[in-house]
Amino acid sequence: MKLASRTETRKETVIDLDGVKVGGDKPAIMAGPCAVESREQLMETARAVRAAGATILRGGAYKPRTSPYSFQGLGEEGLKLMAEAREETGLKIVTEMMGLEQMEPVMKYTDIIQIGARNMQNYPLLSAIGELDKPVMLKRGMSATIREWLLAAEYIMNAGNHQVILCERGIRTFSEKTRNTLDLSSIPLVKELSHLPVIADPSHGTGMKKLVAPMSKAAIACGADGLIVEVHPNPEEALSDGSQSLRPEEFQELMQELSLIDSSLGGSGEKILPSAI
Amino acid sequence: MKLASRTETRKETVIDLDGVKVGGDKPAIMAGPCAVESREQLMETARAVRAAGATILRGGAYKPRTSPYSFQGLGEEGLKLMAEAREETGLKIVTEMMGLEQMEPVMKYTDIIQIGARNMQNYPLLSAIGELDKPVMLKRGMSATIREWLLAAEYIMNAGNHQVILCERGIRTFSEKTRNTLDLSSIPLVKELSHLPVIADPSHGTGMKKLVAPMSKAAIACGADGLIVEVHPNPEEALSDGSQSLRPEEFQELMQELSLIDSSLGGSGEKILPSAI
Amino acid sequence: MKLASRTETRKETVIDLDGVKVGGDKPAIMAGPCAVESREQLMETARAVRAAGATILRGGAYKPRTSPYSFQGLGEEGLKLMAEAREETGLKIVTEMMGLEQMEPVMKYTDIIQIGARNMQNYPLLSAIGELDKPVMLKRGMSATIREWLLAAEYIMNAGNHQVILCERGIRTFSEKTRNTLDLSSIPLVKELSHLPVIADPSHGTGMKKLVAPMSKAAIACGADGLIVEVHPNPEEALSDGSQSLRPEEFQELMQELSLIDSSLGGSGEKILPSAI
Amino acid sequence: MKLASRTETRKETVIDLDGVKVGGDKPAIMAGPCAVESREQLMETARAVRAAGATILRGGAYKPRTSPYSFQGLGEEGLKLMAEAREETGLKIVTEMMGLEQMEPVMKYTDIIQIGARNMQNYPLLSAIGELDKPVMLKRGMSATIREWLLAAEYIMNAGNHQVILCERGIRTFSEKTRNTLDLSSIPLVKELSHLPVIADPSHGTGMKKLVAPMSKAAIACGADGLIVEVHPNPEEALSDGSQSLRPEEFQELMQELSLIDSSLGGSGEKILPSAI
Repeated sequence: MKLASRTETRKETVIDLDGVKVGGDKPAIMAGPCAVESREQLMETARAVRAAGATILRGGAYKPRTSPYSFQGLGEEGLKLMAEAREETGLKIVTEMMGLEQMEPVMKYTDIIQIGARNMQNYPLLSAIGELDKPVMLKRGMSATIREWLLAAEYIMNAGNHQVILCERGIRTFSEKTRNTLDLSSIPLVKELSHLPVIADPSHGTGMKKLVAPMSKAAIACGADGLIVEVHPNPEEALSDGSQSLRPEEFQELMQELSLIDSSLGGSGEKILPSAI
Repeated sequence: MKLASRTETRKETVIDLDGVKVGGDKPAIMAGPCAVESREQLMETARAVRAAGATILRGGAYKPRTSPYSFQGLGEEGLKLMAEAREETGLKIVTEMMGLEQMEPVMKYTDIIQIGARNMQNYPLLSAIGELDKPVMLKRGMSATIREWLLAAEYIMNAGNHQVILCERGIRTFSEKTRNTLDLSSIPLVKELSHLPVIADPSHGTGMKKLVAPMSKAAIACGADGLIVEVHPNPEEALSDGSQSLRPEEFQELMQELSLIDSSLGGSGEKILPSAI
Repeated sequence: MKLASRTETRKETVIDLDGVKVGGDKPAIMAGPCAVESREQLMETARAVRAAGATILRGGAYKPRTSPYSFQGLGEEGLKLMAEAREETGLKIVTEMMGLEQMEPVMKYTDIIQIGARNMQNYPLLSAIGELDKPVMLKRGMSATIREWLLAAEYIMNAGNHQVILCERGIRTFSEKTRNTLDLSSIPLVKELSHLPVIADPSHGTGMKKLVAPMSKAAIACGADGLIVEVHPNPEEALSDGSQSLRPEEFQELMQELSLIDSSLGGSGEKILPSAI
Repeated sequence: MKLASRTETRKETVIDLDGVKVGGDKPAIMAGPCAVESREQLMETARAVRAAGATILRGGAYKPRTSPYSFQGLGEEGLKLMAEAREETGLKIVTEMMGLEQMEPVMKYTDIIQIGARNMQNYPLLSAIGELDKPVMLKRGMSATIREWLLAAEYIMNAGNHQVILCERGIRTFSEKTRNTLDLSSIPLVKELSHLPVIADPSHGTGMKKLVAPMSKAAIACGADGLIVEVHPNPEEALSDGSQSLRPEEFQELMQELSLIDSSLGGSGEKILPSAI
């Protein structure tokens, strides 16, 4: 590891999207549905998460589903809806790109390209994205070590793109109740070894709605630069991952609690919540 | 699961040791050396952790070491030193009991009996301890599921002893940098399923000194009823687990940060820190 | 590691129970029910496994069950039935000892003391057994590394008892279909590092009846010194582990296949099958 | 799962490459270097593995390396050397394709396309390969469940390509001595659930040369349809994975042992070894 290493670059990397930052003093909150399903679903969610203080909208247009027979996402149609939501709310957007054939539409619409856990070691994809001028959120692979994860970031950086955000999303263990085991120790460990910002995904990391709030608070308390949280207006009708999605009002409550924890940590004194609240 | 289940008992269990509580509004902080090594080492540590706000002193007299050729602990001599430290500082004490042949000395001196991860499914030991009238801290086994852990508590409770504290100490995964993977999601999950208090051990849970403070904060943020932290006056000379022990001054700093987080969570408004600070 | 190490002792350890051997040229086959349930069940099984070529009868009298409300075994009554079966069939017997309070009855009846996976790091138990003059079968802990397993054997040997048989019984992984993941690579690895005999438990190692035969063959093919296989006359009525138990006729078929594989490996030319067949 | 399921198709799938078969009565042996390094290295290896009885030559031209600074393979140059070796020896060839941009050269030269463990859930790649008319060897992901693995095959089959070979290459566990844990129970389990042929990779599955032979024998004994084994004329000078590569003479010895085991299993009576021996 060279470019991703803290020994190489001592200053924290801050990703700046026209003022919306990931890294630095204030936790960045990304929220939205697992998959974009319809204009109504997305708009309602976007407005709600913006009102609660999120600055980035998440939403999947191309979904990597375990079965070929599951809903695979709306594709470019979903990206257009994301852009529409950005237009209205001012939120930045993050969405997954699964392969190079999706590069053109994804590049056209998104602010941050997400590389999913299943593609963390898809080296041709990493190298290709390394040639773009667009921030990348690189999720940790399901059973990736910290070293492998940082070296995956190194592939992107080595190709020229230094705007990398890391995302801990849980590792696979013997756990039978949670979908994954959210490895929060990776947060301070990555910050020790690297200058890149690192956020947590408590939704995929646990797979259980009731654990999202406590693990979000824990992530911020141990130094995460942000969170990516699944929010859906009707979780029980979601086309994917309903059981781990918060309702808008639950998300708002969580944001209030996060704001208090963040203040207690005293890094910036800045609030997570929007000034309107 | 019957007795340990929240369905059975809706009221949170609070262990009360003459006013020193585990469970309830205020996080209980246990701190001290991995192993009792000498009067000086123990006394110095006990005074320091008490001054910083801990209420319970940890220290191993019988050590379950992977190799038969490693330091095995001072035995009863170590227990006597623990009792002496309690006498002077007013701290309660917690120490591990590895087998029934240690029951007499351990019962004579300790306030809380620790059952280590390696003995979590030592059912004759659990049943025997279930017949005692003394609080028990039951560590999660290295690869125990939540269900197996709670059923181990059930063995103790089924034999009559309902004063059980659970302790998450990290699970074994493929992680190569940390000693274990501290599974903080077990904290809110256990609190969902059971009325028993649950604390976290960030020292064994990570095996890395630099991760102890962030993971302690995360544990409190996600609802842990307390922590058990290794503190040693000279970590580099410790006979066991030096690389994961905090120095007294580092522990004091951590306590200040924990106090702020705890206040921000607003449960009790009570401070973790002693009134003297 | 000293006493268990191949560097220390170059000669293979062979456990000899009046001519019934574990270690050496011919695989030793232990078979029988998970738990002793009744005289009929045990006798029928004992006769059948003997006829098929097994030389050692397995059967649990003290069962380490995850829940305190599950069948815990017949206790000393079960041991007496085991002894009765030995009397009639000439099979040697192996049974689990979970704690020192069971030492007297277990020592009175058994030929080999089994230390279960949950007690692999119960060091007081290992040391106490190390003072006995009776072969010990030490199962690998659910998430024990090879080093930890061999050092557990070292605890027994360091206390004086060098008659240790190791038993691979599967490790805990993310696997959702099998009960455990039988780590057969541990067999040649242990034989590289140690002179102790090592056998495999395909029944607990997989938890699926259909996998018992193929994994038994694989274990012998990669050098295991033997097997311990669960056989039950009526698996669907077994009080524990029915889903992984073979019927007597399935076991007999397996023994024929094993005999052919063993011959093809050509170590001894000796047959696994009894001369009667 | 539909197309990959045994419920759907009861007949075993046999891949037939002009008479060289994978699946069916006789184990198919693939062997060769981890990476193609030079004409000499490849030719020497090809001749040796052919003489010993292998029918398919393995060799990586595009290497998915954890670090971007490691040797990445010879690319198309490597593929040409593979084709040259096929020309001379008559061996079929299998090589990894990491992304669609490599499709043209890989399709031009290879007989079987390998999808590596890191790409097992690269769904756009799986779907694209599903549209080709060329056999595919799909390695199991590092922490893929059996279900996920079979559903990855389903992606390929659902796109039209039914010529899929599965390859167990070890899963990631806590094991510290072996590179991965070769999960041989997946072999009979996959054969129970699916009609697709399944082979084992004891080289990556263990990462230790000394374990390759015993685990190869075990794989055949539990029903694997073949093996893929790393062979290198000078393992200590290999540019990748030298520590797990067999020398040609070690490979030859292994083939003789495999032939005996295969005969003892008696499926076909056919020999693994070439008639010349």
